[in-house]
Amino acid sequence: MRGAILHAPGDVRFEQRDDPKIINPTDAIIRMSATCVCGSDLWDYRGINPVNEPTPIGHEYCGIVEEVGAEVTTIKPGQFVIGSFFASDNTCPHCRAGYQTSCQHREYVGAGGAQAEALRVPLADGTLVATPEVPSDELLPSLLTASDVLGTGWYAAVAANVQPGKAVAVVGDGAVGLLGILSAKQMGAERIIAMSRHEPRQTLAREFGATDIVTERGDDGVARIQDLTNGIGADAVLECVGTSEAMTQALRSTRPGGNVGFVGVPHGVEIPGQELFYSHVGLRGGPAPVRRFLPDLIDLICTREINPGKVFDLTLPLDHVADGYKEMDERRAIKTLLRP
Amino acid sequence: MRGAILHAPGDVRFEQRDDPKIINPTDAIIRMSATCVCGSDLWDYRGINPVNEPTPIGHEYCGIVEEVGAEVTTIKPGQFVIGSFFASDNTCPHCRAGYQTSCQHREYVGAGGAQAEALRVPLADGTLVATPEVPSDELLPSLLTASDVLGTGWYAAVAANVQPGKAVAVVGDGAVGLLGILSAKQMGAERIIAMSRHEPRQTLAREFGATDIVTERGDDGVARIQDLTNGIGADAVLECVGTSEAMTQALRSTRPGGNVGFVGVPHGVEIPGQELFYSHVGLRGGPAPVRRFLPDLIDLICTREINPGKVFDLTLPLDHVADGYKEMDERRAIKTLLRP
Repeated sequence: MRGAILHAPGDVRFEQRDDPKIINPTDAIIRMSATCVCGSDLWDYRGINPVNEPTPIGHEYCGIVEEVGAEVTTIKPGQFVIGSFFASDNTCPHCRAGYQTSCQHREYVGAGGAQAEALRVPLADGTLVATPEVPSDELLPSLLTASDVLGTGWYAAVAANVQPGKAVAVVGDGAVGLLGILSAKQMGAERIIAMSRHEPRQTLAREFGATDIVTERGDDGVARIQDLTNGIGADAVLECVGTSEAMTQALRSTRPGGNVGFVGVPHGVEIPGQELFYSHVGLRGGPAPVRRFLPDLIDLICTREINPGKVFDLTLPLDHVADGYKEMDERRAIKTLLRP
Repeated sequence: MRGAILHAPGDVRFEQRDDPKIINPTDAIIRMSATCVCGSDLWDYRGINPVNEPTPIGHEYCGIVEEVGAEVTTIKPGQFVIGSFFASDNTCPHCRAGYQTSCQHREYVGAGGAQAEALRVPLADGTLVATPEVPSDELLPSLLTASDVLGTGWYAAVAANVQPGKAVAVVGDGAVGLLGILSAKQMGAERIIAMSRHEPRQTLAREFGATDIVTERGDDGVARIQDLTNGIGADAVLECVGTSEAMTQALRSTRPGGNVGFVGVPHGVEIPGQELFYSHVGLRGGPAPVRRFLPDLIDLICTREINPGKVFDLTLPLDHVADGYKEMDERRAIKTLLRP
């Protein structure tokens, strides 16, 4: 098969690779229906995370099951499945508590490189969720988002305790932030303030449910959110970037007793204990336990209640994966869908 | 009247002072029935917080209302009252959300110095809670704890989301930590692990509901808590110290999806964003909104369901306040009650 390999910062190549094989009896092999490029792939692409050797890349996936290991009981060949970027047994105490990305037996699915024609998924029964039937082609983009970017925006909203009628602010207008807006809207938030400076993203933010756009950042951004919330602050803030500036922005935009959900992988973030203390703000983050939300998200997508696939503003054939990175890196695309 | 003045680190004097007076029409003056020394007073006493001039000290109080300002409507002279260390209007959005210590009009009651024969309490209607009748003398110690130390332990348990049947760990065996144990017990926690190396405190911890004592600290302490919770971690951890070591201890002892409530005023605490992210732990702290809990706590005390006053292992006449500090500073006393 063929798949994407990151050779060095800025150097993604689509190459012939070995076909994935069943290694453990709990594995499944899936034939990719669609995959995509994640904002977190750009940390590697830009060399912010070191690249020491040629590495398969990509961790968002959906497709048709081709083969399962001897111990796989619920997932069957021929099914259309979606899974999280972390494999989980879905039975350990952390999984049962809804934190499958902290599964005691978790494995990073992306290690196999999902920007490829096929992928090995460990712990198939715990990780994959099958749709009732093979979905029509137009649903694929939305279903693919459930694998990470939608699940992550959704978790940000859950971690920030978004509630009906409440005021929400979203820091970050990348695909996760935009789907955080969609999630907050779906959870009944009344006011959704998107922090964004980019017009195409502002348009999509409004389409997903944003009621207000704040273009200011830093202290000015905080002041605008205070203005928009009668000097109280937002009830729930979704931090979808991962920088120190974004975290500060999020914490200072939240009302006392409110919550920040943070899903941007922190790079150089240190949270000052005394500021957090006097803020009375609650804070929870982490790699989204997508598996917890998958059944509900698949349902919302298949019944057309939500259309998160709109976040893809560029679709390329999988063998043009390198262009997909380039367009996102240079911020000409929000998110690139790749079709084998 | 007479009251305590902190002149310099280690130098507390009981001196003649001006009688407190009504300054604003929302003020009340109370005659002190009992007051005490707080662990946080020791930050000043030890010079960790700078002492720039002779300063009235103390912020825990209960007593009889002597006089009220013209705009005070619910609090009446002759009532026995307890209030928080922060005055609050109890009507602003932050108060209504239950975060009275973030009140938009908050004032630090301790500025007047509660280790004194009388005290001015601002925003009396919002701040003070009156008991149905003047309580008997033996209830005074417990009622006094509701002013801060019990309210703070209680808030730690609320912020850590203690639930019936769950496993709780408490970092810090000072008076707040000990009353955090009592609070967790009252909220139905099944397992309560106290981290303590001091035998008299261990005894009180068990009396208040601790099921296990962990004497190890650092990585060994974390390992012990993992052992005691089948490798899962505690559901809820109460951080009642305020140092970097205590916060690290708390975060690493909590299960993914669990919560840390932190009430030790942070001194030099920086929380690493990436560690917090991958821990999946939720975090909320702050100066306890004691006012939120006062009615319930007073009720639990007056019906003798709880006896938090046991935390006082030293009672002195108010004019011996300097000895009260010394005994606590040298860890011979857990907490000193002062009677005028």
